[in-house]
Amino acid sequence: MSSDPSSLRTVDWKNNKVVMIDQTKLPNELVFVEFDDYNQVADAIRTLVVRGAPAIGVSGAFGLALAVLQSNATTKDELISDLENAKKILFETRPTAVNLAWGLEKIMIVAKSRDSVEQIREQVISEAKKMADEDIEINKTMGKNGSILFDDNDTIMTHCNAGALATVAYGTALGVIRATKESGKNVKVIATETRPIQQGSRLTAFELKHDGFDVSLIPDTAVGYSMANGLVNKVIVGADRIVKTGHVFNKIGTYQVATMAKQHGIPFYVAAPLSTIDMESNAEDVIIEMRKGSEVTGIGDKKTAPDKINVINPAFDMTPPELISGIITEKGIAKPPYEESIKKLFEN
Amino acid sequence: MSSDPSSLRTVDWKNNKVVMIDQTKLPNELVFVEFDDYNQVADAIRTLVVRGAPAIGVSGAFGLALAVLQSNATTKDELISDLENAKKILFETRPTAVNLAWGLEKIMIVAKSRDSVEQIREQVISEAKKMADEDIEINKTMGKNGSILFDDNDTIMTHCNAGALATVAYGTALGVIRATKESGKNVKVIATETRPIQQGSRLTAFELKHDGFDVSLIPDTAVGYSMANGLVNKVIVGADRIVKTGHVFNKIGTYQVATMAKQHGIPFYVAAPLSTIDMESNAEDVIIEMRKGSEVTGIGDKKTAPDKINVINPAFDMTPPELISGIITEKGIAKPPYEESIKKLFEN
Repeated sequence: MSSDPSSLRTVDWKNNKVVMIDQTKLPNELVFVEFDDYNQVADAIRTLVVRGAPAIGVSGAFGLALAVLQSNATTKDELISDLENAKKILFETRPTAVNLAWGLEKIMIVAKSRDSVEQIREQVISEAKKMADEDIEINKTMGKNGSILFDDNDTIMTHCNAGALATVAYGTALGVIRATKESGKNVKVIATETRPIQQGSRLTAFELKHDGFDVSLIPDTAVGYSMANGLVNKVIVGADRIVKTGHVFNKIGTYQVATMAKQHGIPFYVAAPLSTIDMESNAEDVIIEMRKGSEVTGIGDKKTAPDKINVINPAFDMTPPELISGIITEKGIAKPPYEESIKKLFEN
Repeated sequence: MSSDPSSLRTVDWKNNKVVMIDQTKLPNELVFVEFDDYNQVADAIRTLVVRGAPAIGVSGAFGLALAVLQSNATTKDELISDLENAKKILFETRPTAVNLAWGLEKIMIVAKSRDSVEQIREQVISEAKKMADEDIEINKTMGKNGSILFDDNDTIMTHCNAGALATVAYGTALGVIRATKESGKNVKVIATETRPIQQGSRLTAFELKHDGFDVSLIPDTAVGYSMANGLVNKVIVGADRIVKTGHVFNKIGTYQVATMAKQHGIPFYVAAPLSTIDMESNAEDVIIEMRKGSEVTGIGDKKTAPDKINVINPAFDMTPPELISGIITEKGIAKPPYEESIKKLFEN
């Protein structure tokens, strides 16, 4: 475990180990953790040491990179079988997140395309590292694409954390805000707390303040007040999964932020890489994970609900396309009707 | 300080002292606190030891009852002057809450109508006790009036705490739910956490579980999910202030719950005594208190946001009449158009 306050690289590969910021320690401490076992990476994904769709996609890939090093296989078949086992364990940590499936599958294809155990080892590690580098490049391109939608002196609301801390670096939704500022426009940000895990206060407010942005924190209950009182010009969020019809699955609470934005005529944008778009599934096929009740009944040691209370704690909700003004990707901005415009993104 | 787990009488007058449940200790401990100084009552209102519009109205009245006992005045003029000072201090603790102003004013009228210091002392105390008893009666009548709006097997969402713990006993919104159950209908409740102070998880979930209701807790971010997934049939909330046009000022977050209910065709009701209705002010005259940022940046000792982060923390928001299906009072149910129906409530 080491601590380096100058870096906000969320997930990295160093000396055949996976290095991550332990996001459960934020905003109190910036702590980096090192793993040499894919089971540790699975635990890290499950316990939200690392979170955010792109970051866990790359984390999954790095998990398989550890698996090739851990395996004692002497034949390709044995190694592929070990990798399939590791893939299953890694996948089951967050079944809703399409990037995780995508990251794992991309590595499996590379592994299967090679002939020798040595080649597979080398290529899996090199592919995982390439995916991390590409994530940063994609975010920068996405940011530039999205920045044209924002104006000088905008106050932009964001929900959850779709920032550097949700990706390998730079961020998706916050990447667009970064690029807008880099283009010379002055912007302010309102971050929602995002209960129950408080990614908004712990991560987004931390990350933006760290980088010198003018950021204000609100409780999730103050979204309506902020919009009704003219404090917000635009909204931008990330996505955990987007299906071909433009239905967006993202952190619980996104749907009501989008509804309130629509009610007040405030544009609501989603920023996500193409890897987040699932062209196979329909909205009704997506399983929404239910998370532990203890996330809602207390914070830290502070109990905030009576013992044995029943809790409904869904991880995500679905925002329908009619509430979304545009979907910003590295290949351009999709506008309604999404069935058409999303398809086109893949044709460029 | 004493502890009596069998009683949920929120505020009471015993042996010339004010006795309150310390709601900041819930749901961990049921602790009763005793005050013999109106400044302690003012502190209790300010620090949310007692909260909820009707409860703080009666608490204000009891504060003035302590003030008549504390005063060394020998003439009516001196005593009224001491009471005016106490009234000012009590009023400034929660300037948005119309019940507080109402409770204080009602006592001042009684005080001024008497001639001798002795008569004033006696009458102020007796009037304050009468207000407490009336509050319970009003809630029971309101509950009965509102119960006809709810059906067998309804699941009812409520925000914040408009229960026994918000009143002297029985509750307003939760009083309606109690009366519905007492009328033989089987109902379930979904309580929103209600950040930042968590009255929903700390108080509503505690109170309903204590009384044997089937209650589930959700984070405030899961309101949209719950409605979109058919988990909610009706919504009922209390109010801190209702103006003559039917605009309802209530706990921050109410407005977005009402908006989501409208979006899903779910009836949204408000339950409040006539004392909550302010026939003088217009919606735009109502001052919304901003509360301390520290309520949002952490819970207990657990810091959940970076140091020195800017916070927007309004205590209330405004729900416009077009989102409200009915306003339930002890004099009947007002339906749109409210300007007319609210006026009629006062004519009966």
